[in-house]
Amino acid sequence: MSDVNRQFLLAARPVGKIKESDLAAHQGEIPSPEDGEVLVQVQYISLDPSMRGQMQAAVAYSAALQIGDVMRARGVGRVVESRNPGFPEGALVSGTFGMQEFAIGNAKVDRFRRFADDLDAKLVLGALGGTGITAYFGLLDVGEPEAGDTVVISGAAGATGSVAGQIANIKGCRVVGMAGTDDKCTWLTEELGFAGAINYRTQDIGAELDRLCPDGINVYFDNVGGEILDLCLDRLAHHARVVICGGISRYNEEGELPGPKNYFNLIYYCARMQGFLAHDYADRFDEFYPQMEQWVRSGEIKQRETVVEGFQNLPKALVALFDGANTGKMMVHVS
Amino acid sequence: MSDVNRQFLLAARPVGKIKESDLAAHQGEIPSPEDGEVLVQVQYISLDPSMRGQMQAAVAYSAALQIGDVMRARGVGRVVESRNPGFPEGALVSGTFGMQEFAIGNAKVDRFRRFADDLDAKLVLGALGGTGITAYFGLLDVGEPEAGDTVVISGAAGATGSVAGQIANIKGCRVVGMAGTDDKCTWLTEELGFAGAINYRTQDIGAELDRLCPDGINVYFDNVGGEILDLCLDRLAHHARVVICGGISRYNEEGELPGPKNYFNLIYYCARMQGFLAHDYADRFDEFYPQMEQWVRSGEIKQRETVVEGFQNLPKALVALFDGANTGKMMVHVS
Repeated sequence: MSDVNRQFLLAARPVGKIKESDLAAHQGEIPSPEDGEVLVQVQYISLDPSMRGQMQAAVAYSAALQIGDVMRARGVGRVVESRNPGFPEGALVSGTFGMQEFAIGNAKVDRFRRFADDLDAKLVLGALGGTGITAYFGLLDVGEPEAGDTVVISGAAGATGSVAGQIANIKGCRVVGMAGTDDKCTWLTEELGFAGAINYRTQDIGAELDRLCPDGINVYFDNVGGEILDLCLDRLAHHARVVICGGISRYNEEGELPGPKNYFNLIYYCARMQGFLAHDYADRFDEFYPQMEQWVRSGEIKQRETVVEGFQNLPKALVALFDGANTGKMMVHVS
Repeated sequence: MSDVNRQFLLAARPVGKIKESDLAAHQGEIPSPEDGEVLVQVQYISLDPSMRGQMQAAVAYSAALQIGDVMRARGVGRVVESRNPGFPEGALVSGTFGMQEFAIGNAKVDRFRRFADDLDAKLVLGALGGTGITAYFGLLDVGEPEAGDTVVISGAAGATGSVAGQIANIKGCRVVGMAGTDDKCTWLTEELGFAGAINYRTQDIGAELDRLCPDGINVYFDNVGGEILDLCLDRLAHHARVVICGGISRYNEEGELPGPKNYFNLIYYCARMQGFLAHDYADRFDEFYPQMEQWVRSGEIKQRETVVEGFQNLPKALVALFDGANTGKMMVHVS
């Protein structure tokens, strides 16, 4: 075990596109757990679109990071020193460990979560992590899919989109995904069982939507915003639900971005557009974890990860996330 | 009884702002009812923002009018000749009579509706008409107000907005209305019991919303779209509902209008924005009519009308509607 704790600190609030220099390498100490606390050696660190918001002065859903703070990040690892009997040495745990090799916390106060020791740690950051929770409640609770519905998902090869699409499949929907490479599209249709996929960089999105969704879109799960949102708003079915999950195309932009000019179609289609935050469902996480664990163990939900090797590559990986370099869950392998 | 049937025909599809010359005066014949039909002498003709859409080539919610057709319009009148025992001579009936003095129809097929003979005919076009139905289902079913909620209504002195606000009041909400003159604002607070009113032409809308809605907006009933929608999207309460009822500011515009740039706030507020069409609730109209009749007879719901005298003034009145000249329900008194 190392005797230093490598970290990345927030060095600058991003302006426009995130830069590697917005994070700064630092060497901290490895703390010792006090009563009720555990020390975790981090194995994988999650990279998420919401990080850009976290780096800003204030976001609606969590306290602001200060310049010089350890960059906030979800992680998964093993307990290496425990003063909490519920989290023994060797236990697989996840938490908001930050961008560092070792994290300490009071498992209860800091909401560490223990998983079955034999689970693939990478699943804990994906299907069983924040993106899985987002996909699950966003699709099922906000999107309210019914068997036979046509469900369209943008950013469908991403960590959230790919899980949302597979859940829709399990619920008996016809799922059409949009992604940015032919490889991603093939993955959606060949391996995840999507009914169709659209390469939004090379295909005529509107024409493909018309072809693949002849009866309109019952649920549109929006991960990107922008023009694709408007194209879907033009093709809704009666009583459609538009789930506003994110808009990675917006996160790196400065200034005012246009809204969806076709929002007025919500009237003609008697449709709704709804946003949500995963932590709003905290009191229902106990419904989520066993269900998702069953789905991943049975293979009904598959996960693909883009794993960047090496703690030192965290800034590069964060920039790459916003360039769409990942298929599925993006993470850095630390140890 | 006259022996001609004065009419206004659709003369041109409006381009930009509606012009009086988009309608053309015409003299038709007074038809004779066949078995099951009734002849109605029209007393009042309703003017509605949706008329501009009706004048276009195609709208989502009804078959397109052709150039030369009698302009489509809701009306109320008395049966003057009946071959249907359910609609005797003298009965007060409403229907889509068109812009004409006499209308004939099969009461069942053409969905004429009979009202209690002693009701004020003007109520039949307002609180008990399409705008009342729109207010009722839009507010209650789409907005889902709860007692104690802050409900903001734009176009609040209009036919729909004023009824929606009064229903919200009945349901125990704090209601804040926006209107375009001080007289309208005084009517909202002094006579309709609104908690507050904002003159959107003379006041700082954002500052007034901040002052009148310190805990955010639980339900925003949007009749106007545009900047006011964005200002409200910036001030939602958690789990807010935005009811997209109309956007009179949009109807007279040509080309692409911007969408609500603040729609992304739906995520942070876990809020929804939803559209609807009144006719979607046709199977629940039997719930609406007795409830609204009770409210108007008890005085819990008040109606103000802008009545333009004289059939020949229909085109002028239609133009005036889009200039915001009306307070409450706009109609023309025919006979």
